[in-house]
Amino acid sequence: MPHGYHGRILRVDLSAGKTWTEELPEVLYRRYLGASALGAYFLLREVPAGADPLGPDNRLIFLTSVLCGTTLSGTNRYSALGKSPLTGGFGESEAGGWWGPELKAAGYDGIMVQGCAERPVYLWVHDGEAELREAAHLWGRVSGEVQDTLEEELGDSRIRVLQTGIAGENLVRFAAIVNQCKHFHGRCGLGAVMGAKKLKAIAVRGSQRVEPAHPQAARAVLNWFREHYDREQDGLHLYGTARGILLLNAGGILPTRNFRQGCFEQADKVSGQYLAETILVNRGTCYACAVACKREVEVPELGVIPQYGGPEYETIAANGSLCGVGDLKRIALANQLLNQYVLDSISTGAVIAFAMECYEKGLLTKEDTGGLELRFGNAEAVTRLIEMIARREGLGNLLAEGVKRAAEKIGRGAEKFALHVKGQEFPMHEPRGKRSLALAYACSPTGADHMEAPHDPFFESFHPHGHPLGELGLLEPVDSLDLGPRKVRAYYYCQLVWSLFNSLGLCDFVGVPIGVLSLTQLVNFVNAVTGWDTSLWELFKVGERANTLARLFNLREGFTKDDDVLPARMFEPLENGALAGEALDRAEFEAARELYYQMCGWDAEGVPTQAKLVELGLEWAAPEGIDNPHKGC
Amino acid sequence: MPHGYHGRILRVDLSAGKTWTEELPEVLYRRYLGASALGAYFLLREVPAGADPLGPDNRLIFLTSVLCGTTLSGTNRYSALGKSPLTGGFGESEAGGWWGPELKAAGYDGIMVQGCAERPVYLWVHDGEAELREAAHLWGRVSGEVQDTLEEELGDSRIRVLQTGIAGENLVRFAAIVNQCKHFHGRCGLGAVMGAKKLKAIAVRGSQRVEPAHPQAARAVLNWFREHYDREQDGLHLYGTARGILLLNAGGILPTRNFRQGCFEQADKVSGQYLAETILVNRGTCYACAVACKREVEVPELGVIPQYGGPEYETIAANGSLCGVGDLKRIALANQLLNQYVLDSISTGAVIAFAMECYEKGLLTKEDTGGLELRFGNAEAVTRLIEMIARREGLGNLLAEGVKRAAEKIGRGAEKFALHVKGQEFPMHEPRGKRSLALAYACSPTGADHMEAPHDPFFESFHPHGHPLGELGLLEPVDSLDLGPRKVRAYYYCQLVWSLFNSLGLCDFVGVPIGVLSLTQLVNFVNAVTGWDTSLWELFKVGERANTLARLFNLREGFTKDDDVLPARMFEPLENGALAGEALDRAEFEAARELYYQMCGWDAEGVPTQAKLVELGLEWAAPEGIDNPHKGC
Repeated sequence: MPHGYHGRILRVDLSAGKTWTEELPEVLYRRYLGASALGAYFLLREVPAGADPLGPDNRLIFLTSVLCGTTLSGTNRYSALGKSPLTGGFGESEAGGWWGPELKAAGYDGIMVQGCAERPVYLWVHDGEAELREAAHLWGRVSGEVQDTLEEELGDSRIRVLQTGIAGENLVRFAAIVNQCKHFHGRCGLGAVMGAKKLKAIAVRGSQRVEPAHPQAARAVLNWFREHYDREQDGLHLYGTARGILLLNAGGILPTRNFRQGCFEQADKVSGQYLAETILVNRGTCYACAVACKREVEVPELGVIPQYGGPEYETIAANGSLCGVGDLKRIALANQLLNQYVLDSISTGAVIAFAMECYEKGLLTKEDTGGLELRFGNAEAVTRLIEMIARREGLGNLLAEGVKRAAEKIGRGAEKFALHVKGQEFPMHEPRGKRSLALAYACSPTGADHMEAPHDPFFESFHPHGHPLGELGLLEPVDSLDLGPRKVRAYYYCQLVWSLFNSLGLCDFVGVPIGVLSLTQLVNFVNAVTGWDTSLWELFKVGERANTLARLFNLREGFTKDDDVLPARMFEPLENGALAGEALDRAEFEAARELYYQMCGWDAEGVPTQAKLVELGLEWAAPEGIDNPHKGC
Repeated sequence: MPHGYHGRILRVDLSAGKTWTEELPEVLYRRYLGASALGAYFLLREVPAGADPLGPDNRLIFLTSVLCGTTLSGTNRYSALGKSPLTGGFGESEAGGWWGPELKAAGYDGIMVQGCAERPVYLWVHDGEAELREAAHLWGRVSGEVQDTLEEELGDSRIRVLQTGIAGENLVRFAAIVNQCKHFHGRCGLGAVMGAKKLKAIAVRGSQRVEPAHPQAARAVLNWFREHYDREQDGLHLYGTARGILLLNAGGILPTRNFRQGCFEQADKVSGQYLAETILVNRGTCYACAVACKREVEVPELGVIPQYGGPEYETIAANGSLCGVGDLKRIALANQLLNQYVLDSISTGAVIAFAMECYEKGLLTKEDTGGLELRFGNAEAVTRLIEMIARREGLGNLLAEGVKRAAEKIGRGAEKFALHVKGQEFPMHEPRGKRSLALAYACSPTGADHMEAPHDPFFESFHPHGHPLGELGLLEPVDSLDLGPRKVRAYYYCQLVWSLFNSLGLCDFVGVPIGVLSLTQLVNFVNAVTGWDTSLWELFKVGERANTLARLFNLREGFTKDDDVLPARMFEPLENGALAGEALDRAEFEAARELYYQMCGWDAEGVPTQAKLVELGLEWAAPEGIDNPHKGC
């Protein structure tokens, strides 16, 4: 393979039942790198305007990046993309694990699926070959069973299995896609796209290795990382993504009881530290990553086993504090169920918290819930609802539509309890206390999504690395509660960082500002692997390209500035904790949004200007229509 | 000194006759680097709106950069700045030589002069001390005499002398400033600012050395340069800046006879190759530079001596082909006179060519010229006029005002022969054949100026280094005759490169695209010297900052979009050569200009948007007024 990429993707047409290989030119990799940006390129070109996300015209795209398959920690994430059944817009979600590098080892940089199968199938990709196989025997089974069955069937315990679950089969709008039963493409409901296509799973296995173009330069970066990263000092390794729960709680920004509160009285019983002391049995990792932030937990009395990993911060907060639940073992069970049914743990917890508030306010009754006592704090109700949602049973059928649609159906003011943007439920970060999130949630192409842009603390002076974004000229800290011009700039720059990371398949926990890998070292590594002479400037332009293409996709689907908004609760005061009484100011938010558009090179309506399209080489994608699909890629 | 800078500038108030030292904080160096960008910062803050360029309120600023004093080739240029008497707007001009690093060695990063002396003075700066001294004995003397006198007077042949000349004393609007009799701040008439201040010269001497923060990393870049640069293969070393005359002539873009033509029939007699074969006696250099592109020539029969160096390309073309003169020895004499009187060789040649065309058309007569036969090709007329301009004798007094003012005085259509933008005469590069120059000349804050932005060939495939700007994602060549969107992007990006180079004091002949030093190596070197962790992203933002501040300065002085224009001749066909018949298209030019504004983050009137000011940390400089001079530097 050329260094860093094969220049080949696997095409799959499920309606026709066939697969073929497509060659891609180098310039596509240089301009888009892979993963999120390259996926946005294909999504905009190939999904027709107005396509049904659950119909055959939608694409389901899996793409690695030019770094995937290397042994630098955190470089092996990959993206899934498709038009989202949850938002009706741009859908993208990254996962770690082992599947991405294994796909690369099997000879492909990505897989693009179109059409819908008549009967369930799975795809088996191994060393340059691909087969579609019958999957009736996998349909309706939980993820662990599917994984085990395929390993047995294909006679290889080292295959890597990506699958949708029972939730995806049932077209739950926030169904997810998982690999190895614990690494999730959580957001945007791409599991329902996979379910609608009746593509149950993709198993991959390969033996090709990525050889850097400049091995010595690549080694220099690996050595640099080894010298600068000390895992025994890293809270992420020691306590997982839930390492910060106590700090968040003390700061009044731990989302609690459907975002009414920022402080949860049982936070110390759901923290990463507490988890490490109680139910942790192992620290898992993704391919070739020294951080090993993953958890594996065991709760014998509830049947929780390590195969399904352990709860991340988002899962703990969404299915814990957000629902008023402080029982970590029950949360671990919820995590296992979410993994078995393959649901987005954020949207699921959020829709349950929404239902709890509706129940509290009398908008849902025991009649609606099938007798469930749906009050905040009822851990059993959470786990029961997860199953009901996945199987679309009773109230679960309503909640499977997500908070936006459910609130519309419930009516009577239920909308005010539906914490979402563009139909996607809030992740577990509080915009009233980390105000860059106001922009992140409102303006992200995927709706409320913390993986598309950074959180505030990384702009602040209390960050342990000082000013980790000094490389970008962000030399001064900006307060978390600030939403003025300097915050907009910090947000805008960091959003470029995040877009770049998502296009490189780089984990946020490895690159700055969260991790230690400097942007300079990252550029060095991209050059070492690919043999290019790129710069941080060019790489940031990839990030801009990805963000701009996603914007164009949504504009084409009818989104406007009026979709870049926040739910009313964000302009109401937090009820408790260190930030009790704090609310966003609507005028300040709107001014920040306008400034952000302008920084992006978008007009006052949020439409990219001609100059920005030209600068990014995206004239072909102008809002007035893609008239020449092969021009100026 | 801290690595790369002292954090000290020398302040001089000539009206008060005093000097003092000002400390500057590190953040100023990080945000502005020095030279052009830092100078723009001070100019905008300190020169009051509407100030007379020749009055005491104007500043005359000399600034080195954080790289000055290091031993990497090409890093020792520095900037002179002031409000320009030629354009009435932003004035900036860089010079090489030895004066910048000597100033740094003397303990200062720069000198800022205000006020006007009553009687001629010179400034003597040596190892942290500064004295203003009587200069009546230097007034009215040619540059070589001033240099020799000061060396003798100060008893040190290793002092470095910067001076204005007789032209500056006489307030010729395109008078220059020179160091060591051959390194020029040519453009913008800053010599007249110096003359108006009655500051004849600044002699400097020092013994401090720049120690890189990371000596090993600095050495790595020095070694890289040594490995990648071969001076014996470099036309710049072998033939000087006039190396390309034959190519330009063959391409039909050698400015000839006041830009009517692009092909000069005697080009082979004025080429750098011919110069090397005939009058060259030595190849000079700037401080610590391996390129050694400077010429030293001797023409005994005309009294031309090596002390004044030798003619550069611009000098040869402006005083040669542009005036129809093909006698290299006479051009060498012109060069010596220009250096002795300290005139901008570009504007001087251009104003003479203008006068020749007026003479040809009967707008000037022998009566006006004092009997001079002012036809194209008259070499003696050129050298005679240089003296008349410098001394403001006869017709020289009119021409000393520059082509714009002279044409207005002559009237009767003389404007159409005045090739200038914003009052500054065209340099020797042809916008009809290198079309990025249409933007460069029209939009440069200093008027028609080839040092503020690049020329086309560097975007083209025939460049010997392939795609030297691949680091920026400029992967495809753009044709010289193109002025469409892709050219605008290439121009915009390269303009950022040029602005950065001018802020770093980096010579265009060393950095890409003209030289071999990659942008990546440049970033490495800045970090090695300063100890920072900057990136190409942050450095480009310095370039943007410099360009934006200069724009804001001009807006404040009343410039509008209608000053970003080109003279009529550019829309008329070239008369001869390979591009005979080629002209710019006005609609295409205006569309390109609009797109360029948008790329810069300026509105349709060319005014920087709030978002761009915020992004660059320039809120303090908003067009509505600088209300808080110490905020957010």
